[in-house]
Amino acid sequence: MSPPKATQSNSLRNIVIEAVTPTIDCARYPVKRIAGENCVVEADIFGEGPTALAAVIKWRRAQDVSFAEAPMALIENDRWRGEFPLAENARYVFAIEAWTRAFKSWNEYFMKKAASGLDAASDLTEGIALLENIGQRACAKDRNLIADHIARLRALENPRQAVAIVSAPELAAVVDRNEERSDAVNYDRTSAIVADRPRARSGAWYEIFPRSQGIQPGHHATLREAEARLPDISDMGFDVVYLTPIHPIGTTYRKGPNNSLIATPDSPGSPWAIGSSAGGHMAIEPRLGTLDDFDHFVAVAERLGLEIALDFAIQCSPDHPWVTEHPEWFRHRPDGTIKYAENPPKQYQDIYPINFDSPDQKGLIEELHRVVLFWIEHGVKIFRVDNPHTKPVAFWEWLINTVQEKHPEVIFLAEAFTRPKMMRVLAKAGFTQSYTYFTWRNTKIELTEYLTELTQTAMIDYFRPNFFTNTPDILPPILQDGGRPAFKSRLVLAATLSPSYGIYSGYELCENEAIPSTEEYDHSEKYEIKTRDWNRPDSLREFVARINAIRRGNPALQQFATIAADLKK
Amino acid sequence: MSPPKATQSNSLRNIVIEAVTPTIDCARYPVKRIAGENCVVEADIFGEGPTALAAVIKWRRAQDVSFAEAPMALIENDRWRGEFPLAENARYVFAIEAWTRAFKSWNEYFMKKAASGLDAASDLTEGIALLENIGQRACAKDRNLIADHIARLRALENPRQAVAIVSAPELAAVVDRNEERSDAVNYDRTSAIVADRPRARSGAWYEIFPRSQGIQPGHHATLREAEARLPDISDMGFDVVYLTPIHPIGTTYRKGPNNSLIATPDSPGSPWAIGSSAGGHMAIEPRLGTLDDFDHFVAVAERLGLEIALDFAIQCSPDHPWVTEHPEWFRHRPDGTIKYAENPPKQYQDIYPINFDSPDQKGLIEELHRVVLFWIEHGVKIFRVDNPHTKPVAFWEWLINTVQEKHPEVIFLAEAFTRPKMMRVLAKAGFTQSYTYFTWRNTKIELTEYLTELTQTAMIDYFRPNFFTNTPDILPPILQDGGRPAFKSRLVLAATLSPSYGIYSGYELCENEAIPSTEEYDHSEKYEIKTRDWNRPDSLREFVARINAIRRGNPALQQFATIAADLKK
Repeated sequence: MSPPKATQSNSLRNIVIEAVTPTIDCARYPVKRIAGENCVVEADIFGEGPTALAAVIKWRRAQDVSFAEAPMALIENDRWRGEFPLAENARYVFAIEAWTRAFKSWNEYFMKKAASGLDAASDLTEGIALLENIGQRACAKDRNLIADHIARLRALENPRQAVAIVSAPELAAVVDRNEERSDAVNYDRTSAIVADRPRARSGAWYEIFPRSQGIQPGHHATLREAEARLPDISDMGFDVVYLTPIHPIGTTYRKGPNNSLIATPDSPGSPWAIGSSAGGHMAIEPRLGTLDDFDHFVAVAERLGLEIALDFAIQCSPDHPWVTEHPEWFRHRPDGTIKYAENPPKQYQDIYPINFDSPDQKGLIEELHRVVLFWIEHGVKIFRVDNPHTKPVAFWEWLINTVQEKHPEVIFLAEAFTRPKMMRVLAKAGFTQSYTYFTWRNTKIELTEYLTELTQTAMIDYFRPNFFTNTPDILPPILQDGGRPAFKSRLVLAATLSPSYGIYSGYELCENEAIPSTEEYDHSEKYEIKTRDWNRPDSLREFVARINAIRRGNPALQQFATIAADLKK
Repeated sequence: MSPPKATQSNSLRNIVIEAVTPTIDCARYPVKRIAGENCVVEADIFGEGPTALAAVIKWRRAQDVSFAEAPMALIENDRWRGEFPLAENARYVFAIEAWTRAFKSWNEYFMKKAASGLDAASDLTEGIALLENIGQRACAKDRNLIADHIARLRALENPRQAVAIVSAPELAAVVDRNEERSDAVNYDRTSAIVADRPRARSGAWYEIFPRSQGIQPGHHATLREAEARLPDISDMGFDVVYLTPIHPIGTTYRKGPNNSLIATPDSPGSPWAIGSSAGGHMAIEPRLGTLDDFDHFVAVAERLGLEIALDFAIQCSPDHPWVTEHPEWFRHRPDGTIKYAENPPKQYQDIYPINFDSPDQKGLIEELHRVVLFWIEHGVKIFRVDNPHTKPVAFWEWLINTVQEKHPEVIFLAEAFTRPKMMRVLAKAGFTQSYTYFTWRNTKIELTEYLTELTQTAMIDYFRPNFFTNTPDILPPILQDGGRPAFKSRLVLAATLSPSYGIYSGYELCENEAIPSTEEYDHSEKYEIKTRDWNRPDSLREFVARINAIRRGNPALQQFATIAADLKK
C-alpha cells in the first residue's frame, strides 16, 4: 500500500468564520469610527477538530490595493479579536483570513502522545516532514535554523526526547513566519469603515443668522460686520459656527414677518428662499457682501479656532437661475408652469422644490455636487443639510461618498426631524452626524430610553447625534414654559449627554416667546432681522462658557463610551 | 416654458427596503419552517415623502422560475408584513418589491387640496392624465371603466366635485390592477426557506440496538426477530425508531465488554466499527439478516405508524472494503499504513477515520451521497448522523442540500455534543434537527436559560432541538443518582419542553449502572448484547405511553410557540 499523494487544494473548507463585528446591515453600509483610533474586529472562528488555528485581519485604505495584516487572538468560546490602526482620515476596508497551523497542531498532538508513553516514532517523522516543507519556503537564515532542528531530531535515539526541540520558541517563530496557509478561508463580507476626523464625533455648535449679527437695531449686517461676533462665540467655547443660508434671497412671493404672505419693503426674506438675479447656490446674498468677504469670514473664524458650517438646502426661490436654466429640474403643472411647495392647506409660493425624478437627474446631481465642491474650495468643511429626508437616500449616499473620496475631512449633518427609520437610514447612508429627538425628550425616563437607544443598539456604529436645544424652527414647550432654569438645565443635558450639541443664538438670552400653541418663535428670525444685546447682564454666556470649558477639559464628555457604560450598569 | 418630458427610469431610487425577516446570518443560510404553514415576512419599507406605497412578497419554490406575489400591508412605524403559503415540502425563495402608488398618492393629495378650498383644477388635470396612462395598459373592461370615469370628471363644472368620482372603490380596484410600477425597488438579499414535513419539528424517538431485541438471553437477534418489538414501541406512542448501525462489523481489533481491547469469541463488536468482508455502509450485518429483511422491517414499522431512523456514521473498521478500494480516503503514516483514531492517551485501533482532505475528495463525497441515496431507496427518510462536527461543515451543507433537492422529505439529526457555535453552524448549514445540552440541564434556572436561548434568539429560525434523556454514550449523573423519580421527571421534561425528544431503550427500565466517575453505562450495549424483560412490572412503559399520548393530543406540545410565549412573560 503506497501513501497517497500530497493533499491538493480542496473545495470543502473546514474553517468557519462568522458573526464578524463591526458591521451594519449585512455590510450594506459603512461603520463609523474616528481616525487615530484602532478598529477592534471580532469574529467567531472555529474548525471541526482540535487543530490549532491562526487568524488575521486583512485591512487597507479603500483607495489602496494591497492589504496589511493584523493578528487576531482567541478570547473565549471560539470568539477571536484583533485590531488595526485607522491612522488617517479615510475610508478603510477589512477582511478576515483564518487557517490551520499545521505544525502547531502536530506539535500539540505529539506532546500528548509522547507524554502518554505511546510509540511516537512515526509521528516524529511526520513532524520532520512538516518542518522540511516549511524550510523550503523560508529565507536562508530561517532555513538553516529549521535544518539544524531537523538534524538534532534525526539524531535522537528516543522520539520522546524530541519534545524540547520541537517546542523551542525560536522554532515556533520561524514556523509562524513561513508556514503555508494551505487551507486558508477568507471572509470578506465586512462593512467598510469610515474613519472621520475627531470633529465628526464631538463639538459645540452655535447657529447664527449672519445678517442679525450687527449692532444697529434692524440693520442688515454684512459678513464683515458679523465677523465682530466671532470672538464672542469663541469666548463662549464653541467649536463650530453654523450659518443659516448666505445665498441671494428671492423676491417673488417673499415672506413677511411671522411667515405672512405680505412682505414689508424692508423684509429681508427667508434665507431658505434661495436664488435671485444675483445668483443661486454658489453666490452670496449681496447685502451680506462678496465671496471675498466670505473667505475673510472663514479665515477670521479659523484663527479663533472656529469652523464654519454652511447650510445646504436643496430648494429654490422662483427667482433662482436654475428655474430658467434648468426647468427640467422642477415639477410642472399640466400648463407648463412650475409647482411651488404645498402641503394643503399650506402653500409655499416662495419655494420651488427640486424634482429628483427629473429626466436630467444626472445633470441635476452633478450640479449639486459642484455646489458642495465650490464651498469646500472656499474653506467650508461642514455642511448642515436641510431636510435631507425629502430627497432620495440614494442621492445622499452617492453625494457623500463622492465628496469624501476626495475630501474625507468633510462633515455632513442631517437635519431630518422625521420618522425614526428614515433618520437612521440617512445616517447609515453616510451622514456624519444627525439631528435628534433630544429637543422633545425631557424626563429622566425619556432621556434614559433615548440614550439607551443611541448607545446600546446598532446605532452606536453609524448614528452620531448632535443634540440641539433649539433651532429657528423649534422652540420646544419646556423652554417656552420653564424659563431660565429650563434653559440652564437643557443646555447642561445637551452638552453632557451627547458628544456633539448645539444651540441657536438667542438661547443664552433665554428667548422664549412662541406663537401660541406652536413651537414657532414669535417674530421668527427667519423673516426678520434680530439685533440683540449680547452683553445683557442676564445672559447665560458665562454659564455656557463654563459648560463648554468643562466639555473641553473632560474627554469623557467628547465620546459616548462613558454614557454607554453607565447605562449598562 | 414647456413641460418636461415624461419621467424616465432613474438610477436613484427613492424607496428603502431593509430589516427583512426572516433571515439568518445575512441570508447565508436557509430559514426553517414547516410545509403547510404560511411564511410571515416583514420589512421596513419607506420612501422620502408622504407618497402612498405598495409592497409585495415575490415568492417561488427554489426549483421554479417564475414568482408568485403576496401582498404586504403597513403595520406601524414603517413596518410592513405579508405572508405566503409553504404548501409543499420543498425549498422556497422570496424577494420583496415596493413601488409608489402614483394614483393613490395623487388622490390623497387632491382630497386634501379640495377640502382646503384651494383651486384644484390643474391637479384634477394631472389625475386624469394618470388615469389615461393606466387605461392604456388595461384590458378592455377596465379600460372602459376608466374611460367612463374620465368622461364624468371632464364633465364637472367644479373640480371639487371630483372627490366622489376619484374615490370610487371600483376605480381603485382597476387602478391597483393596472398601475405601472415605474419606480419599483427590489430587495432580494433574503434567506431561502426550507419547508420541512411536520416530523422535522416534532416526534418521539426510541433508540434500539436491533441485535438486542431478541427474547433468548445473550442471543444476537435478527431483524426479523427485532420486528417483534415494534408493536411494543408503537404501543408506547413513539413515532420514530432509531436503529444503531446495522452494517457489517469489523473483526480486526474488535472491542470486548466495557470497551476492552480483548474481545471474547462471542463479542458482537461495536456497531460503529463499520465494515467487514461482508460489506460496508451499504450492507447489512449478516447476523442481522439481509436487505430483504431490512425492507421487511421498514414495512412492518410503517404499518405500525413508525418511521425508521438510520445511523450515518462516517468511519470504518480496518476491514471495511473502502480501506483496500480507496486507501486515499484515509490518513496515512509515513510508512504508508493507515492511521486509526487516536486521542492520546486513548487509541481506537478498531476505527479508521475518513480524511476529507483526501486528494479524491470528490470521489469520497459522491460515495457518501450514494450511501444516503441507497438507504432512501430502502425506505429510510431519517438519518441520525454520528459526530458531524468532526467532518467539514461545508460537506454537510452540500450533502443535505443535494439530497433534499430530490428528497425534501429526508430528515437529518446532528449528533454533535460539542461547542455551542459548532452545534449552531451545523444546524444553519442544513441539519433538520440537533441533539442538545438538555441531557445536562437539570435545575429550573438551567432549563429556563436553555429554553430561552433556543426559543428567544435567532436559533428559533434554524435550530430544532431533539431532547434525548440518555444515549448509549451518556448516562447523566441525575439518572445515575436519582433513581425512578429522576427517570420519570426527566422524561416529562424532555417530552414537554421540546417538540422532539427521545429515549434510548432501557430507559423505561430505569437502567442506571455506570462505570464509576463516568457517564458510560457499565457493560454498555455498544459492546454486548442486552436481552431485557420489557414486561417487568416496574417498567415505566405505561407512564411513557401516557406522556406520548398527551403529546399527541396537544398541539401545543408539538411546537415551540407556547414555550416561547411563556418565557416572554
